[in-house]
Amino acid sequence: MSGDSLGEMFRVTSFGESHGKCVGVVVEGCPAGLKISEQMVQEELDRRRAVQTIYSTPRMEEDKVEIVSGVFNGFTTGAPICMIVWNREFDSKPYDSIRFTPRPGHADYTAYMKYGGFNDYRGGGRFSGRITIGFVMAGAVAKKILSILDIEVIAYTVEIAGIRAKVKDILEVKENVRKSVVGCPDLEASNMMIEAISSAKEDGDSVGGVIECVALNVPVGLGEPVFKTLEGELARAFYAIPGVKGVEFGAGFDVAKMRGSENNDQYILKGGHVVTRTNNCGGVLGGISNGMPIVCRVAVKPPSSISREQDTVDLARMEETKLKVVGRHDACIVPRALPVVESMMAIVLVDNAIKAGIIPRVLRG
Amino acid sequence: MSGDSLGEMFRVTSFGESHGKCVGVVVEGCPAGLKISEQMVQEELDRRRAVQTIYSTPRMEEDKVEIVSGVFNGFTTGAPICMIVWNREFDSKPYDSIRFTPRPGHADYTAYMKYGGFNDYRGGGRFSGRITIGFVMAGAVAKKILSILDIEVIAYTVEIAGIRAKVKDILEVKENVRKSVVGCPDLEASNMMIEAISSAKEDGDSVGGVIECVALNVPVGLGEPVFKTLEGELARAFYAIPGVKGVEFGAGFDVAKMRGSENNDQYILKGGHVVTRTNNCGGVLGGISNGMPIVCRVAVKPPSSISREQDTVDLARMEETKLKVVGRHDACIVPRALPVVESMMAIVLVDNAIKAGIIPRVLRG
Amino acid sequence: MSGDSLGEMFRVTSFGESHGKCVGVVVEGCPAGLKISEQMVQEELDRRRAVQTIYSTPRMEEDKVEIVSGVFNGFTTGAPICMIVWNREFDSKPYDSIRFTPRPGHADYTAYMKYGGFNDYRGGGRFSGRITIGFVMAGAVAKKILSILDIEVIAYTVEIAGIRAKVKDILEVKENVRKSVVGCPDLEASNMMIEAISSAKEDGDSVGGVIECVALNVPVGLGEPVFKTLEGELARAFYAIPGVKGVEFGAGFDVAKMRGSENNDQYILKGGHVVTRTNNCGGVLGGISNGMPIVCRVAVKPPSSISREQDTVDLARMEETKLKVVGRHDACIVPRALPVVESMMAIVLVDNAIKAGIIPRVLRG
Amino acid sequence: MSGDSLGEMFRVTSFGESHGKCVGVVVEGCPAGLKISEQMVQEELDRRRAVQTIYSTPRMEEDKVEIVSGVFNGFTTGAPICMIVWNREFDSKPYDSIRFTPRPGHADYTAYMKYGGFNDYRGGGRFSGRITIGFVMAGAVAKKILSILDIEVIAYTVEIAGIRAKVKDILEVKENVRKSVVGCPDLEASNMMIEAISSAKEDGDSVGGVIECVALNVPVGLGEPVFKTLEGELARAFYAIPGVKGVEFGAGFDVAKMRGSENNDQYILKGGHVVTRTNNCGGVLGGISNGMPIVCRVAVKPPSSISREQDTVDLARMEETKLKVVGRHDACIVPRALPVVESMMAIVLVDNAIKAGIIPRVLRG
Repeated sequence: MSGDSLGEMFRVTSFGESHGKCVGVVVEGCPAGLKISEQMVQEELDRRRAVQTIYSTPRMEEDKVEIVSGVFNGFTTGAPICMIVWNREFDSKPYDSIRFTPRPGHADYTAYMKYGGFNDYRGGGRFSGRITIGFVMAGAVAKKILSILDIEVIAYTVEIAGIRAKVKDILEVKENVRKSVVGCPDLEASNMMIEAISSAKEDGDSVGGVIECVALNVPVGLGEPVFKTLEGELARAFYAIPGVKGVEFGAGFDVAKMRGSENNDQYILKGGHVVTRTNNCGGVLGGISNGMPIVCRVAVKPPSSISREQDTVDLARMEETKLKVVGRHDACIVPRALPVVESMMAIVLVDNAIKAGIIPRVLRG
Repeated sequence: MSGDSLGEMFRVTSFGESHGKCVGVVVEGCPAGLKISEQMVQEELDRRRAVQTIYSTPRMEEDKVEIVSGVFNGFTTGAPICMIVWNREFDSKPYDSIRFTPRPGHADYTAYMKYGGFNDYRGGGRFSGRITIGFVMAGAVAKKILSILDIEVIAYTVEIAGIRAKVKDILEVKENVRKSVVGCPDLEASNMMIEAISSAKEDGDSVGGVIECVALNVPVGLGEPVFKTLEGELARAFYAIPGVKGVEFGAGFDVAKMRGSENNDQYILKGGHVVTRTNNCGGVLGGISNGMPIVCRVAVKPPSSISREQDTVDLARMEETKLKVVGRHDACIVPRALPVVESMMAIVLVDNAIKAGIIPRVLRG
Repeated sequence: MSGDSLGEMFRVTSFGESHGKCVGVVVEGCPAGLKISEQMVQEELDRRRAVQTIYSTPRMEEDKVEIVSGVFNGFTTGAPICMIVWNREFDSKPYDSIRFTPRPGHADYTAYMKYGGFNDYRGGGRFSGRITIGFVMAGAVAKKILSILDIEVIAYTVEIAGIRAKVKDILEVKENVRKSVVGCPDLEASNMMIEAISSAKEDGDSVGGVIECVALNVPVGLGEPVFKTLEGELARAFYAIPGVKGVEFGAGFDVAKMRGSENNDQYILKGGHVVTRTNNCGGVLGGISNGMPIVCRVAVKPPSSISREQDTVDLARMEETKLKVVGRHDACIVPRALPVVESMMAIVLVDNAIKAGIIPRVLRG
Repeated sequence: MSGDSLGEMFRVTSFGESHGKCVGVVVEGCPAGLKISEQMVQEELDRRRAVQTIYSTPRMEEDKVEIVSGVFNGFTTGAPICMIVWNREFDSKPYDSIRFTPRPGHADYTAYMKYGGFNDYRGGGRFSGRITIGFVMAGAVAKKILSILDIEVIAYTVEIAGIRAKVKDILEVKENVRKSVVGCPDLEASNMMIEAISSAKEDGDSVGGVIECVALNVPVGLGEPVFKTLEGELARAFYAIPGVKGVEFGAGFDVAKMRGSENNDQYILKGGHVVTRTNNCGGVLGGISNGMPIVCRVAVKPPSSISREQDTVDLARMEETKLKVVGRHDACIVPRALPVVESMMAIVLVDNAIKAGIIPRVLRG
């Protein structure tokens, strides 16, 4: 029941806090016989880290994964895999002063209310972006499983600060995405995005964006309608990423402007396989994958921690007051969220593939 | 695990097929002592029915609810409530001819593949819009519970066929929404939408739209982060409605164009309560309700069953072919989806309110 | 969360009341392509019915199954299977007089308290033995699945009223069990049991007993430790049968008297397969099936509805009073519980076999 | 779905291996505001340790709890509580030689088969008694919650090696239980039990026993029938303890010898409350607690690791062979299992109390 777990057959349980001892994750239901190393997980973690001073926080601590269970002689055992990143360098003092003055746009207020003031407010506690370290560690395991099924997951930036990238072919996306500091395959737009982030930063402000995520080679049949559609399961997972406010598939909100004759993806044969001419459905029909690429977009809001003065309420005294968030914060989290979005996609696909009977209990690979 | 159930404490299990004996639902976890009548459920069902020949299917069968368990002497007993609508008038013959030629945009193909051809294909089977009869019956129970907590849920049309309604105040929305055949509180836009639907219908085509749904008086504290955020749970529920391809909260995808200073909802005091000046977050921060109205939008695609000739593949012979869907189908399902969207919202809110400890096991009311 | 569902991959949801409109069940997660008929389910239901006036209630209503969803052209579709038995002949009047005077040993008092007096008390409502009609209907589907895997489940009486049956070989059990009115393969003991039941009945009293249940040809590997051991999942399912107060596996409580050297089942090879010389573990080691027969015993208490005068409390007036249960009730439910015990075993085995990856989503058979 | 989690509202996820880095547990759903310290948890862990050379393993490593998340300033935050005991002193070498020769009565064979030989076999891996360290840590948190509700849980030994303790009044039980090395409140029987364990040990053998567990002051209304009865949930939890082969409630298997008139617990008033004269039902009727003490008994088998030569099969060569387990092992685990049994009881009661709406999300105490 608790909200700290995601998935049913492949279940990911998050624990830890931003300024507590650690951030961790337990992965249950991973098949035995999978080759897993800390290095493999570390590579994904490194993608998530704040490396580019241009847009992100200078908190430079190295997030080092430690696998403490479930892996033996380099292979998964079928037992739960617990992975931990120990928190090292942080300064919790600035948070004491804002304990009772919630930052607008952050979870300070709702966490305070829900947990009766007992929540660990330091660094946002459970609501910090650091929580996604656990998502990414679990995602690394999920991606490894998908790789055996030849399924590939790629997320990239398609909009930042109102600047939209031109649509690119998936091959071009793959080629360009890591060339761009902001993970945008349209390198021209990428430059403008970097500019926009810098400008916001100078203004003590922040900007949002949109991430597109694609999964290739997904077999037909994933998704458990009527309630646990593949779209619904993915959307739920994406909304766990701090700052996400919208999720759409295929043509998404544009379907409101289309006619059926335009939106319907016509079936044709290609190489003996049934495919569709267009992919307005984003690879999902009736909540079930149809064999075409899964395509979705995730809207990420501008980070709420900005250095400009804001209105808030002192919850201890119940009076209005002003707040200036000190410390340095990301002016845009879109680029760092890319591996997180990929991780959520991978986790959901693995969970659904196990349900569909595609992944055995022992994998060997 | 199965996808036929939604919710954990308040759980809704769907069963039945479009052209089978019935469509039904089992509601578990409903508190005892709640006054429930078939008439109350029937009223919600009637809102869902196809009454306006202008935009919808003329299948005129009356969907009559029968409560077969869980209610005794007019009150819920705490036992599971099973509600059934028996299917009456339907003609399954047209479906035999398209059994192996999946309709583009429909679930025919994915269902055929996932269930090895054993799926009940008549009338779309489990993937028919008729399945939402069960959602609405469960939603009627959920709304009754919410009414005791003074929580109100209202869905209305904000876009059809590219025509956007002007933003209206919630009081005006309430006043106008049932005046409009398409459930659009901007009555001017409403007329244009009706026009657009008629025009599409004449062309043997269909149109999509966007529904906005608002929940008023939701207390602070609903939602179970980090994975079961209120947005995520709602999104998953909305994606169970056939045809939904996008879900956003508050400013939604527009956050990609906003700066933090603009998007952050500043806190103020109003009547001794903490409120926010704007509601760009749509009433949810950190996955938890913040006491402001929950505001979300759901994109609904144009119905895939259109009378125009389309390309498909004969799955028995594995060759390309043409398909003309016969029979008459809705040219736009947005208006009929309004009570369904409200139902999903109500179900998720009740489930989360029970988790939050707000709803006792015995309610009396 | 709700207690009305059992199982995760193969999930059974119970609904209905003893004197309500019906007793029913929804089976989710059943593979598509399984040949299912009402007649097949009916046969199991008939075994559960009260046919022998010697020991059981003369309520002679015929419990007729109606499958209302999930089966199409004689095969399961992969969609939820809803099965209903409509209640016909019953007299609820006797129950009005005992509404506030709970019968000792029955659930009247706890149901009254838990559901704030809103529970349907007629005929015991949800706590009646009639609820097991739903278990048996679901069990019939589960047994059909097991039959494809060659797994066989047999329950038989080993003790009634303190009379213990002699241990029989499983072949003899199969041969004799249906010859005995009380389902006891030791036909001599069977006669004494019948005698004991008659005698208790004459005294306005009742007797309990023990059921043994065996599953043959269960493959190695079912069970999900550390918490969802095969024993634990089975025990939980058995405790759902009204009147069960004990569950043991293999040597069961006798392990307290054994030494390790005696209790350990030594491994040998037989026909190229690893088997054990004895089966003190009852076919389960570490919570996982080991390929030997699953063997367990279930203690069933004497029915609480007896015609002798008993002490109770008037809950409306909160004063002590006397109670005489009128109507005729089973003097022993052990024989009728046999198909119910088999059903619970079958349901749990199927659920675990799906988890173990042994049963595909489409079965064809 | 995975078997590594127990509970729904109060959920306990186990991870770690006997000879891996650690044994740990994540507790989700614990209310915020609960005063928790490592010392409190440590006290329970110490009860579980092998302290008495007379009957148990001399592995003397100190199991030190480390709380790594979910507790802030000495209080629970509402976030998942992760607790870890780091493994220190162990010698895995003896296990390499028996990797392919499963110990009779242990999980070696079933684990090998289920996980394709990838299981961590060292020290029994996930199937070691050390796994219960996690159960006890979670149990310490659960007991703390129960203490606020005035609910008390006590387990004690009632049988070892066929020696049965005399029935004692609960006050006498409480007084005597910690005086006995084997946790048996009948101090005379206790001495005989110690004798029997020593004798078995000298013979290179082991003995089993029975534990009784009582919960006092449990309110009426816990348990979620029809499938998740309080007995069923408890039984499932007890079967997670390695070596448990039977679970019974109240009169248990003796109900098979009783008549209804004898077994039914008559209702009387006592101090204005409804109580029963006897407690043959063990405090549970219809799967729901009735306000009387919960009473159950758990059969624990003799440890399978004995030093006598046993028959086994070499799984690599598929030929019969002999096995002598080296190292020193517990000759009886009953005494050490007492805090584990209490923990399972406490965990299940808390989970059910939350479901029953008795425990709020914020507790303060």
